[in-house]
Amino acid sequence: MSGYVSDAVIRRLPAYYRHLRELEEEGVKQISSQDLGERMQLTPSQIRQDINSIGGLGRQGFGYPVSALKEHIREIMGLNREHRMVILGAGRMGNAIANYPHFRREGFIPVAFFDNDPERLNPDAEELPVYPVEELEKRLPELNAAIAVIAVPAEAAQELAERVYALGVRAIWNFAQVDLHCPRDLVVQNVHLSESLYILSYRMNEMWPEGK
Amino acid sequence: MSGYVSDAVIRRLPAYYRHLRELEEEGVKQISSQDLGERMQLTPSQIRQDINSIGGLGRQGFGYPVSALKEHIREIMGLNREHRMVILGAGRMGNAIANYPHFRREGFIPVAFFDNDPERLNPDAEELPVYPVEELEKRLPELNAAIAVIAVPAEAAQELAERVYALGVRAIWNFAQVDLHCPRDLVVQNVHLSESLYILSYRMNEMWPEGK
Repeated sequence: MSGYVSDAVIRRLPAYYRHLRELEEEGVKQISSQDLGERMQLTPSQIRQDINSIGGLGRQGFGYPVSALKEHIREIMGLNREHRMVILGAGRMGNAIANYPHFRREGFIPVAFFDNDPERLNPDAEELPVYPVEELEKRLPELNAAIAVIAVPAEAAQELAERVYALGVRAIWNFAQVDLHCPRDLVVQNVHLSESLYILSYRMNEMWPEGK
Repeated sequence: MSGYVSDAVIRRLPAYYRHLRELEEEGVKQISSQDLGERMQLTPSQIRQDINSIGGLGRQGFGYPVSALKEHIREIMGLNREHRMVILGAGRMGNAIANYPHFRREGFIPVAFFDNDPERLNPDAEELPVYPVEELEKRLPELNAAIAVIAVPAEAAQELAERVYALGVRAIWNFAQVDLHCPRDLVVQNVHLSESLYILSYRMNEMWPEGK
């Protein structure tokens, strides 16, 4: 696959993947842009444009082959590979992420926590050890992790990002409420939960200016 | 405030709010679109356009008044009100949300959990009781909650959404990996964590097609 895929399309790819997987489970073999659009609350022309931009598939009048398209999207999203993840911060959020359903099925494997709180340390745990942050430089190389998940308070995030970058990590999934300043060859995806909640609040306020 | 505010602007409002709050804490009184743009990694003209679309403030050549603009955004996001939240699902994710930093400061008050797991029930807890889901109809009206947070498995989400809607809840913050089918007067904001992770993976794959 080559060519330019817009951010908007990239943001929609996971939803395509999810719906196509559901359709496959329902035994659907082919789906028209009309039906897929209805399901995804997109117009048929948006569907055709999106799918075209990621490299085609589907013949005029036949609709899209569900399994093949799902596999294609799975591949361009890199879900056909295993991604090992270290989780920085073993608090409630870090643990919720480590146990989030289906991550393992898609190849995202949490391999260790790092935390500063002595009460959370558990370096001998078989499945998901919790190491002290001061051992990052010692432990990270052997963990062979491609992704660092940042689930620490905002104040600690930037320093940790720089340390894992120096150790070769090139992707950060950031849950800290801060914009990280990062080099260009570091992929950062932010989950700013409070921003999502504020947008909800904005829409409530827009719909019921007098309160609800 | 009236007129049309685009989705893209709405999505950026929380970041404006966060940066303006930081600037206020740093003691900055006025900021130019140039400086704010640099900080937020947006062009000055984007900044001017965004702020103009939410109703102005700022005089040519003087920059924007930090505190007033922050307050204005706070108000249109409805953060000057208290929003009581019930959390459906008292698992790891539900607990991470209930304890997420700063929510209370912005007026989002978790008031109760509902869960099906007998081991999680704790109806007599003073601060955050955990009630059985079967008591939703009985308990929800007196809890006076404007927002329901859905932190249950995907299969259970739609039914719960319908039940809280029937009880008068008009806003759902959905963490379940499913698109809810909802009436128009229900505000739904989704946090599909796996989708965020897949986008990270897409960008890794785009940057290092041979793996990293």
